[in-house]
Amino acid sequence: MQRAAVLVRRGSCPRASGPWGRSHSSAAAEASAALKVRPERSPRDRILTLESMNPQVKAVEYAVRGPIVLKAGEIEMELQRGIKKPFTEVIRANIGDAHAMGQQPITFLRQVMALCTYPNLLSSPSFPEDAKKRARRILQACGGNSLGSYSASQGVNCIREDVAAFITRRDGVPADPDNIYLTTGASDGISTILKLLVSGGGKSRTGVMIPIPQYPLYSAVISELDAVQVNYYLDEENCWALNVDELRRAVRQAKDHCDPKVLCIINPGNPTGQVQSRKCIEDVIHFAWEEKLFLLADEVYQDNVYSPDCRFHSFKKVLYQMGPEYSSNVELASFHSTSKGYMGECGYRGGYMEVINLHPEIKGQLVKLLSVRLCPPVSGQAAMDIVVNPPVPGEESFEQFSREKEFVLGNLAQKAKLTEDLFNQVPGIHCNPLQGAMYAFPRILIPAKAVEAAQSHKMAPDMFYCMKLLEETGICVVPGSGFGQREGTYHFRMTILPPVEKLKTVLHKVKDFHLKFLEKYA
Amino acid sequence: MQRAAVLVRRGSCPRASGPWGRSHSSAAAEASAALKVRPERSPRDRILTLESMNPQVKAVEYAVRGPIVLKAGEIEMELQRGIKKPFTEVIRANIGDAHAMGQQPITFLRQVMALCTYPNLLSSPSFPEDAKKRARRILQACGGNSLGSYSASQGVNCIREDVAAFITRRDGVPADPDNIYLTTGASDGISTILKLLVSGGGKSRTGVMIPIPQYPLYSAVISELDAVQVNYYLDEENCWALNVDELRRAVRQAKDHCDPKVLCIINPGNPTGQVQSRKCIEDVIHFAWEEKLFLLADEVYQDNVYSPDCRFHSFKKVLYQMGPEYSSNVELASFHSTSKGYMGECGYRGGYMEVINLHPEIKGQLVKLLSVRLCPPVSGQAAMDIVVNPPVPGEESFEQFSREKEFVLGNLAQKAKLTEDLFNQVPGIHCNPLQGAMYAFPRILIPAKAVEAAQSHKMAPDMFYCMKLLEETGICVVPGSGFGQREGTYHFRMTILPPVEKLKTVLHKVKDFHLKFLEKYA
Repeated sequence: MQRAAVLVRRGSCPRASGPWGRSHSSAAAEASAALKVRPERSPRDRILTLESMNPQVKAVEYAVRGPIVLKAGEIEMELQRGIKKPFTEVIRANIGDAHAMGQQPITFLRQVMALCTYPNLLSSPSFPEDAKKRARRILQACGGNSLGSYSASQGVNCIREDVAAFITRRDGVPADPDNIYLTTGASDGISTILKLLVSGGGKSRTGVMIPIPQYPLYSAVISELDAVQVNYYLDEENCWALNVDELRRAVRQAKDHCDPKVLCIINPGNPTGQVQSRKCIEDVIHFAWEEKLFLLADEVYQDNVYSPDCRFHSFKKVLYQMGPEYSSNVELASFHSTSKGYMGECGYRGGYMEVINLHPEIKGQLVKLLSVRLCPPVSGQAAMDIVVNPPVPGEESFEQFSREKEFVLGNLAQKAKLTEDLFNQVPGIHCNPLQGAMYAFPRILIPAKAVEAAQSHKMAPDMFYCMKLLEETGICVVPGSGFGQREGTYHFRMTILPPVEKLKTVLHKVKDFHLKFLEKYA
Repeated sequence: MQRAAVLVRRGSCPRASGPWGRSHSSAAAEASAALKVRPERSPRDRILTLESMNPQVKAVEYAVRGPIVLKAGEIEMELQRGIKKPFTEVIRANIGDAHAMGQQPITFLRQVMALCTYPNLLSSPSFPEDAKKRARRILQACGGNSLGSYSASQGVNCIREDVAAFITRRDGVPADPDNIYLTTGASDGISTILKLLVSGGGKSRTGVMIPIPQYPLYSAVISELDAVQVNYYLDEENCWALNVDELRRAVRQAKDHCDPKVLCIINPGNPTGQVQSRKCIEDVIHFAWEEKLFLLADEVYQDNVYSPDCRFHSFKKVLYQMGPEYSSNVELASFHSTSKGYMGECGYRGGYMEVINLHPEIKGQLVKLLSVRLCPPVSGQAAMDIVVNPPVPGEESFEQFSREKEFVLGNLAQKAKLTEDLFNQVPGIHCNPLQGAMYAFPRILIPAKAVEAAQSHKMAPDMFYCMKLLEETGICVVPGSGFGQREGTYHFRMTILPPVEKLKTVLHKVKDFHLKFLEKYA
C-alpha cells in the first residue's frame, strides 16, 4: 500500500521525510506528526500522495513557520495539559507579529476601520472627525459604499491615489496611481510579479537573484515557479552590506546554467537588519541597468530604521535621482505592507506595489492575472490607506497618533540596541548592529561535538541548536539555515518584538543556554 | 524595437493581441488601451514583455473581468465627462457583487466585525450582547487579542471549530476541525488544492475535468499551472444537468493525452444555476471512486437555492451516506465562501475548504504551502465565522438577523423567477430555470449575418452581441464564450442582483435590444 511504502522510504531517506525539506529533523517529524490526524482505515491508494504531488510544491521550504514552530505548538499544548517544563510559557520570537507580542494597534487606524465596517458609527460622537473623514472617503470609493463589495482588481482607486501621494511626499518624485497595485500583503505582490517574470526552459530558465541570508518567501516562490535561484551573499563582516562585486560574481556564474533576469533586494534587510546606503543603492541600480535585470525592492521595513547613522532611501527615489537614462529604463517593482512599520497590522493582509517602466502590455497582463483572484481584501486595502495617509498636524487625532507612533518606534530602537549589546557580550555569539527591520540574526559558534550530535540526529546543526533552545527555555527562534548562510557558519533569527522587560529575560535566557551549550559540547 | 515589433504582430494575429485571449476584440483592445499609461520614451528594450513573460500566465483568460468590463469602465468615465449616451448609467451585471448592487450587509455580521476591529466598542451599550459574545470568542483566539496578528496558517482555531460544527449540523455527519482550512475566498482554496495536484509531463500531465460552461477561475488556474483542461459538457436541454455518461466520454478521451486526476463540480452551478439532485451527486461520487479522481466540490452557492423542487446536498454528506467504501476512500475538497449566500461579503475575501481523506503527509504539505503566504486575512476569517455561526433562536439578534436573511433570499428567489419568465418570453432567447446561485445564462440566437459582422470585427459572436448591448443600453454582461459553451451556441451570463425594479428595467432593455438586434441582422 502507498502509505506503508512512503513510511519505508522515509526511514531510508531522511531528507525527503517531511514537508519542510532540508532543515527537517526527526524531532520536527515528531512535531509534525502531532499535527496529523487519526490513523486512516484506507484500504486503497490515495490519488494525492508525496509521490504523485506537484514536485515543485514538495521542494518548497518555509522555515519561519517550519518544524520548530510546529514543535513550539506541541510544547504549548503540553504546558496546557499541565506537563512540567523548565519554563512556563513559549515565547514565539520566530515571526514579526507585533500585536501577538503585545504591541497595541494604532487607535486612529482601528477607528477608521471600525467606521468603514459598521457605518452606523459615523453618527457616533465617540469617534473623531478626522477618522470619520477618512472612513467616508474610503466608503465613497467602494461599490455600494461597502467594504463587502469587490474592489477593482488593482485596488480601490482613492486608496491608490493616497499611496501615490505618499510616495510623492516620501521621495520628492511624482508617483502615478496607475502604477500602484494594492496586494494581499507584500508576499502576494512579490509572488505575482515573479509569476509574470518566469519563463524559458533548461539553460534559458529565468534566474532570480536573491540575497543570502534571504526571507524564505523568495526561495519558496522560486521553487513553486520552478525558476532558478541565484544566490548573492551579503557581507557579514561588513554589517551585512550588499557588495556589487558579489552581485557580479553571482550573475556571471549563473549565466552558465540559467538566464538571470531578476534581482531581489530586501532593504532594510530581513533577517539581517542592515539599511542600505544611498551609494549602495546607486551601485545596485547601475548594475541592474548594465546587466538588464528587473529590480524587485522589498521595502516593507522602510519605517523601521533605528541606527542614527542610517536613513531609508527608496529605490524609486534613487532611480529618479540618477537621471532619465536610468529612470526611464530600469524596470522596478517595489513593495510595502501594513504588517510592519509601527502599525504591525499583519492580520489584515494589506500591501501595495509600485511598478516603474512596466511595459504597457504587461500592465494589461498583470491586471488580468490579478482579476482571477478578484481583488485583495478590501479591509486590508483600507488599512493600507491609513498607513499612507495618517493624521497630519492640525487634525484632531494627530497628537495621539504621533504619541503612539513614537512609542512603538522608540521602543523598537531601544530593543534593537539592547539586543545587539547583550548578544555581543556572550562568548561565541556575534551580532551585527540592528540598523533596521525587527530581527537579530546573530552568528553563533556551534562546537564540533555539537555538529556531530546534530548529525547523529539527522539535523542541521543550527536546527539542533534552536530545538534545544526551545526545549530548554521555551524560546522559539528560526535556524539560520532557513534563510541561507555561508557554508559552515550558523545563525538564528529572533524578533525584537517582545516588550522590553520580557526581551531582557529572553536575551539572558539565550545567553545562559548558549554558555551551557558551549560547555556541554566543548 | 521590442514595442514596435509587438504592435506589428498584433495587427497580423488578433488572437494573440491582448491579455484577455480568445474572446478579445478590437473594441476591447481600445478599452484596454484606455487603461494604459502615457507613451514611454523608452530608448531600450524592456526585460518583461509579451514575448519574454511567463507563457502560462499569458494564456490565462478571465472573462468575468475581461475586455467588456474594461469597456464598461471606459463608458462610465465618458458619462462622467458628460458625453451623451442612450442611457445614464452602466449597470454592472457581470459579477456576483451583491453589496455593489445595493444589497445591505447583515447587521449582526458587521456588528461583530466592528467589535473585533475596535474592541473599545465592547463596552458600548449600543451593541447587542450576542454580537459581543461572538467578538470576544474570536478575539480570545487571536494573538494578542488582535485581528492584526497573523493567525495560524490553517486559520484561527476557534473559527475552524465553528466551521466544523456548522458542517456537522448541515450534514448530520461529523466534521473534524483539523480538516478545515480557512482561505482567502474560495478561489484561493481551489487554486491551492489544484497547485498540489498538478504534476507530470507530456501524456502523464495532470488532467483536470471541469464543467462547460464553467466559472473561469478553473480554466485560469489550469492554465497558470500548465495542467490539461478536460471539458465535460452540462446538458442544456436538461436544465444543465450533469450526466455521468458525458463524464465517461470526457475521461475516456482525455486518457489519450493526459492523466485525468481531478474532477471539479460546481453545485449550485455557476454560471448555469442548476442544483444537482442527490442521485446525480451519488453517480458522480461513484464515478470518481471508479476512475480514481480527486473530487473538488465548489459549493459556494449552497445557501442560494430558489426552486421549490430543489434542495442543496453537500458532496460530503452524500459521500458519507454512501457508506465506508466511499467515505474512507474518495478524496474530496469542498469549498465555501463569505462572498455569496445572503451575506454577500465579497470584499473580506473569506472562505474555507474541508478536505476528506487527504493523505496525512499531504496535509503537512498543504500547511507548508499555506505558510508561505502566512495566513488568510483575519478579518475575512472573522466574517466566515459569522456566516457559519449566526444568531440562534433565543439570542438577542436572532429576529433581526432572520428578517434580513429572509429578505435577501426571498428577494433573490423572486428575481430568479422573474428573470427566467421574462427571458423566455423573448423570441430567440431561451433560459433554463434559475434553480440556484445568482446568474441567468440564457441561450441567445445570433443570426448568421451578425456572426459575419462579428467576424469582420474579429470578435467572437457573443462578444460582439454583449459589446453592442453595453454600448446601446449600458448593461454589462459576460459573453458565454468566457465560460465555454457548445460549438455554435451562444449565451451570456447576467447576475440577478440588481434591486427588483431595476432588474425589471434591465430585462426589458435586454429584450428590446435583442429584438432590434434580430431585426437588424435578419
